[in-house]
Amino acid sequence: MESKGHSRIPAEQWAMVVEKTGGPCVYKQIPTPIPGPDEVLINIKYSGVCHTDLHAMMGDWPLDRKTPLVGGHEGAGIIVAVGEFVKDLKPGDLAGIKWLNGSCMACSYCRQAEEPLCVEPLLSGYTVDGTFQQYAIGKAAHVARIPQGTDLQAVAPILCAGITVYKGIKESGIRPGQHIAIVGAGGGLGSLALQYAKAMGLQSIAIDSGTEKQRLCNDAGAVAYIDFMTNKNLVQAVKDATPDKLGPHAVIVLAVTEGPFQQATEFVRARGTVVCIGLPANSYLKASVFDVVTKMINIKGSYVGNRQDTAEALDFFCQGLIKVPFKVIGLSKLNDVYDMMREGRIAGRYVVDTDR
Amino acid sequence: MESKGHSRIPAEQWAMVVEKTGGPCVYKQIPTPIPGPDEVLINIKYSGVCHTDLHAMMGDWPLDRKTPLVGGHEGAGIIVAVGEFVKDLKPGDLAGIKWLNGSCMACSYCRQAEEPLCVEPLLSGYTVDGTFQQYAIGKAAHVARIPQGTDLQAVAPILCAGITVYKGIKESGIRPGQHIAIVGAGGGLGSLALQYAKAMGLQSIAIDSGTEKQRLCNDAGAVAYIDFMTNKNLVQAVKDATPDKLGPHAVIVLAVTEGPFQQATEFVRARGTVVCIGLPANSYLKASVFDVVTKMINIKGSYVGNRQDTAEALDFFCQGLIKVPFKVIGLSKLNDVYDMMREGRIAGRYVVDTDR
Amino acid sequence: MESKGHSRIPAEQWAMVVEKTGGPCVYKQIPTPIPGPDEVLINIKYSGVCHTDLHAMMGDWPLDRKTPLVGGHEGAGIIVAVGEFVKDLKPGDLAGIKWLNGSCMACSYCRQAEEPLCVEPLLSGYTVDGTFQQYAIGKAAHVARIPQGTDLQAVAPILCAGITVYKGIKESGIRPGQHIAIVGAGGGLGSLALQYAKAMGLQSIAIDSGTEKQRLCNDAGAVAYIDFMTNKNLVQAVKDATPDKLGPHAVIVLAVTEGPFQQATEFVRARGTVVCIGLPANSYLKASVFDVVTKMINIKGSYVGNRQDTAEALDFFCQGLIKVPFKVIGLSKLNDVYDMMREGRIAGRYVVDTDR
Amino acid sequence: MESKGHSRIPAEQWAMVVEKTGGPCVYKQIPTPIPGPDEVLINIKYSGVCHTDLHAMMGDWPLDRKTPLVGGHEGAGIIVAVGEFVKDLKPGDLAGIKWLNGSCMACSYCRQAEEPLCVEPLLSGYTVDGTFQQYAIGKAAHVARIPQGTDLQAVAPILCAGITVYKGIKESGIRPGQHIAIVGAGGGLGSLALQYAKAMGLQSIAIDSGTEKQRLCNDAGAVAYIDFMTNKNLVQAVKDATPDKLGPHAVIVLAVTEGPFQQATEFVRARGTVVCIGLPANSYLKASVFDVVTKMINIKGSYVGNRQDTAEALDFFCQGLIKVPFKVIGLSKLNDVYDMMREGRIAGRYVVDTDR
Repeated sequence: MESKGHSRIPAEQWAMVVEKTGGPCVYKQIPTPIPGPDEVLINIKYSGVCHTDLHAMMGDWPLDRKTPLVGGHEGAGIIVAVGEFVKDLKPGDLAGIKWLNGSCMACSYCRQAEEPLCVEPLLSGYTVDGTFQQYAIGKAAHVARIPQGTDLQAVAPILCAGITVYKGIKESGIRPGQHIAIVGAGGGLGSLALQYAKAMGLQSIAIDSGTEKQRLCNDAGAVAYIDFMTNKNLVQAVKDATPDKLGPHAVIVLAVTEGPFQQATEFVRARGTVVCIGLPANSYLKASVFDVVTKMINIKGSYVGNRQDTAEALDFFCQGLIKVPFKVIGLSKLNDVYDMMREGRIAGRYVVDTDR
Repeated sequence: MESKGHSRIPAEQWAMVVEKTGGPCVYKQIPTPIPGPDEVLINIKYSGVCHTDLHAMMGDWPLDRKTPLVGGHEGAGIIVAVGEFVKDLKPGDLAGIKWLNGSCMACSYCRQAEEPLCVEPLLSGYTVDGTFQQYAIGKAAHVARIPQGTDLQAVAPILCAGITVYKGIKESGIRPGQHIAIVGAGGGLGSLALQYAKAMGLQSIAIDSGTEKQRLCNDAGAVAYIDFMTNKNLVQAVKDATPDKLGPHAVIVLAVTEGPFQQATEFVRARGTVVCIGLPANSYLKASVFDVVTKMINIKGSYVGNRQDTAEALDFFCQGLIKVPFKVIGLSKLNDVYDMMREGRIAGRYVVDTDR
Repeated sequence: MESKGHSRIPAEQWAMVVEKTGGPCVYKQIPTPIPGPDEVLINIKYSGVCHTDLHAMMGDWPLDRKTPLVGGHEGAGIIVAVGEFVKDLKPGDLAGIKWLNGSCMACSYCRQAEEPLCVEPLLSGYTVDGTFQQYAIGKAAHVARIPQGTDLQAVAPILCAGITVYKGIKESGIRPGQHIAIVGAGGGLGSLALQYAKAMGLQSIAIDSGTEKQRLCNDAGAVAYIDFMTNKNLVQAVKDATPDKLGPHAVIVLAVTEGPFQQATEFVRARGTVVCIGLPANSYLKASVFDVVTKMINIKGSYVGNRQDTAEALDFFCQGLIKVPFKVIGLSKLNDVYDMMREGRIAGRYVVDTDR
Repeated sequence: MESKGHSRIPAEQWAMVVEKTGGPCVYKQIPTPIPGPDEVLINIKYSGVCHTDLHAMMGDWPLDRKTPLVGGHEGAGIIVAVGEFVKDLKPGDLAGIKWLNGSCMACSYCRQAEEPLCVEPLLSGYTVDGTFQQYAIGKAAHVARIPQGTDLQAVAPILCAGITVYKGIKESGIRPGQHIAIVGAGGGLGSLALQYAKAMGLQSIAIDSGTEKQRLCNDAGAVAYIDFMTNKNLVQAVKDATPDKLGPHAVIVLAVTEGPFQQATEFVRARGTVVCIGLPANSYLKASVFDVVTKMINIKGSYVGNRQDTAEALDFFCQGLIKVPFKVIGLSKLNDVYDMMREGRIAGRYVVDTDR
């Protein structure tokens, strides 16, 4: 299967490769992949680093993955080759690779635009090689369309973190003008959630700890900040942050421990929705049946966005409404980022530059 | 405040009264209540007996209730008097009293037709006297409108059990043609759920144990029956009962223990909904965060129906699509019903005749 | 029926009365009305003047109305008396009277929170006396709850114009980030629609004529302005104002002639929604069946908001997101406002001060 | 591009070809087409004949089409070859070709499962050759999956007529238990609509003329029949056919003239939906703005179903709930069918047998 526009594409390229479960990654040259007829080859310029990448290297989840593996699923770059059946993309277009690299396009989920639930998904940096390399492959139907002129450094974290929080907010069913609580609002995902919430006409109650995070949350548009460390009655405090004291209409739980989840079902408004994002290993959500039933609470899991969610999340970014706090580091230093991640020392997002 | 049509209403009437927490009820004469201007007085002919009535007598729930108390919240009868502001009801009309006797009609829930979530509800047989008496009061806006000619014995259990399961199915968001699993399908609520599901164009997978319940479920329209006692892999068996093996689109959990709830989150289809009905004391629902997130499962509590749900649930009954298995017993024998309930010896529903 | 807090309420008050169809109104003293048990008496301070008030005086619509009539349905003031069954309102509270003064609270529409469709509605300034008087009556369940400290002059036009456009936008089903076209964006309703749209996270395409209206629309937050007078191909111009050239996701038609309606069905995006607001006498909407079917277009009528819409529209105003351009004039000058209205000389909204 | 399983496929095959606008079709041998890598070749056994096929031959619509053209878009058969990228289909599988033969799979409509609105659709029997031939090509992602054992004669009309009416009912947003009026209930589409409505738990009011159609409608499950010829006040009669006299919750307009459309907006319930199906040439829908606004009526166009609608419509058929009245005729006699169609002499559906 030949592809158009292969000139100037090197036969070998630099990548960070997970050669064994537990890592670390190895910085080495590997062959540049060749796209199939329904695929594109993207010269990845920048790729965000997500906690999932570390989970993938460590083998934390009950899902099989490729070995050896090039991780990464927040990559932004320039298309350099397209397969023969690709019609609406061409070399020179900007594009992004996200967690869902491809899907069957025919199962009952794919045909209902629920492709993240496809039973035979291709997952970037997990079941197929991802974006911690200079040239990565994406299924043409699935790569994110990025408008010309977009800052590729800044947009990279939108491709997973941004889409994920945007999707979570959409899933909550909340409407403009209503109140949304963001549990873990001061972290990287939280900051994005606050900005998307504001852009969507929502009023955000930020829940986190410390005065530095308070400042970050206020800057990102929160209308209230509740410190879960200093507050003696968190449930009441969150309810009191809404004008009618009934609690927020929706809660986005970004926490990686179990406790905040159960609290969320206590402070959410009757008929409200608690959206669970993030995948702490081996954890359980737990809630009182009496509360859930008599308050008619809705608890939902939200995974990643579909193609349309991707386009919408990018559109908010391109309107200038979402500012991602990030630091750039060379791809070869990826293991350092994982070390900082393990130690909980990262504020905002790290983005790797694949050229160094 | 005077009322129209008070002729022939006795000053005293027979009732079963909870005089102290823990019971038993006392069969005695008490004054006939007088309706306020926005209320109606109903000569209750028959009243279904619900597990909730026993919970109320025993004080099982973390909600204050009236003492002494006349229980009961599934009462069907004939209006004998109406308050001066009541316009669309008149003596001689058939009407029913349900769990939600009245609500404020002005709070944010009431104005969104979510009156079961009103923060100042009147609850029949709990915060106000209910239907285990010959004459009971209901707020005119809330009493169920029952068409002339309806069988008052048969309709009584619809007023709580019927509405509750119908509401639960509605809350699941399921569409005609899809598959719904009913956990506890062989009980009183379950039988009603199967019949409502069939009337709504759904395909039901009944989950219960024993061959007698299997026969009941098949008669009520189930397309499959899974015996949770004899089946070694319940989760797989439920999935296999759907043509594409992906599991049911919705699950109605009528069970009164915690285990079935967690299983439901395992066998429900990705993007499916688990609806929790019923209020086991001090119980918790629990589910794997990984499953809930990556399958984008929706867990909802469903309480009782609103006024519109009531009208719809009655309409299905009046079309002849719902047959309630019930036995009639004198009101004075109510304690016997509670005894059988405690011992789990009731199949179907008991209905008390208030005239004996 | 006695009421609490009647002290200092005069027996007579000033009002503008429509004594015969066609007008003019007569400024005269009439008895202060006395609230029933489920009503409140409001000392109206300010009342907006709506085109509907002129239609009511002229008898333009195929709906019976009261005679003699006190018009007005955008009145804001202070509660001075409440009926005996009114629990959540008290003298001193701020409240507003809107088009829907009361409804039966029991029909299938009322019980689904669709009370504007109640078959026995009370309409302020139409079937019951309205707000062009110093003291007006409202059903307690329906009067708008206005927070203490609200500017009563500025809030008055929200009570009809604001709620109406907010409801129309809600009805369109549009989501944050999407594009909405407002036909007639430069008028009083249009300016409010642009502001609500912005507060709801939408991108507005304003359609009107002239450079003065262009400036107004830009100030109110429009992202594009299309002049229907100077533009040779309006349909294409509106489509081109969306990034993908497919047209807006929704259109709000505030025009009072038939032409713009049909155009809206031509430039709206496939699967988009055209919401028709406003009631030109004897007019028809018309659209090509081929276009409507093959583009799966949705055409909806939107009337006035329900109680919840009212609360939400007020909440956006109270957050400071909606600025109403208005001029204040004495109640006694109401006929002058009608004259200007007939001549199309009103920009923004007139508000009458009932004290002069 | 080679394909698997080409053995026993003849180089030439019989087809009915539209060689010039206006017809007639010519029965002749043409080359058997060869599927591309994302396509399948289907040995069409039976194909329904739809009014659209006649419109296509006559050039009635403002959409360009292929010439010469093999018409037909309701074809059921057996897959005999699949392209190299086709994974979930294989020779021997049953499959159907419908109006939407293929779509781009990447535009904003395709990615939201609204592929019938794709801006670059392939339309069977219109922009690509259809099913009035022995071997037809379909895009693998789009061909209808038909379960083994299905009667291919009977299922053919489901592939357009069945899906179209099922989709229209879905689009109406109606819920089980509610009333739906079918305008044109006695025709081929109408009979299917009545059966789908019943399977979906709806109560149908059939509107048509004559006693023969009355019998057909009753057999298909209508709860009421209104004869528009003999009834003096059709609008009132339809309203009276609902228990509360408020009119049906939804109306499906299958008529091919303008009058019934406007009537539908008069008898539909307030807040109800009128769904317009069918494409009379050069016709307009018209409705009173006053009625549409004050009753908050929703008017929608419904085109063809998407892939999921197709699966669902087939599933109802495979459950045995939908019986299509049809007659089989040889493919070579297609012009006779068109003659009968022009003369309005067809009751039910004609299905052509491609082997004669």
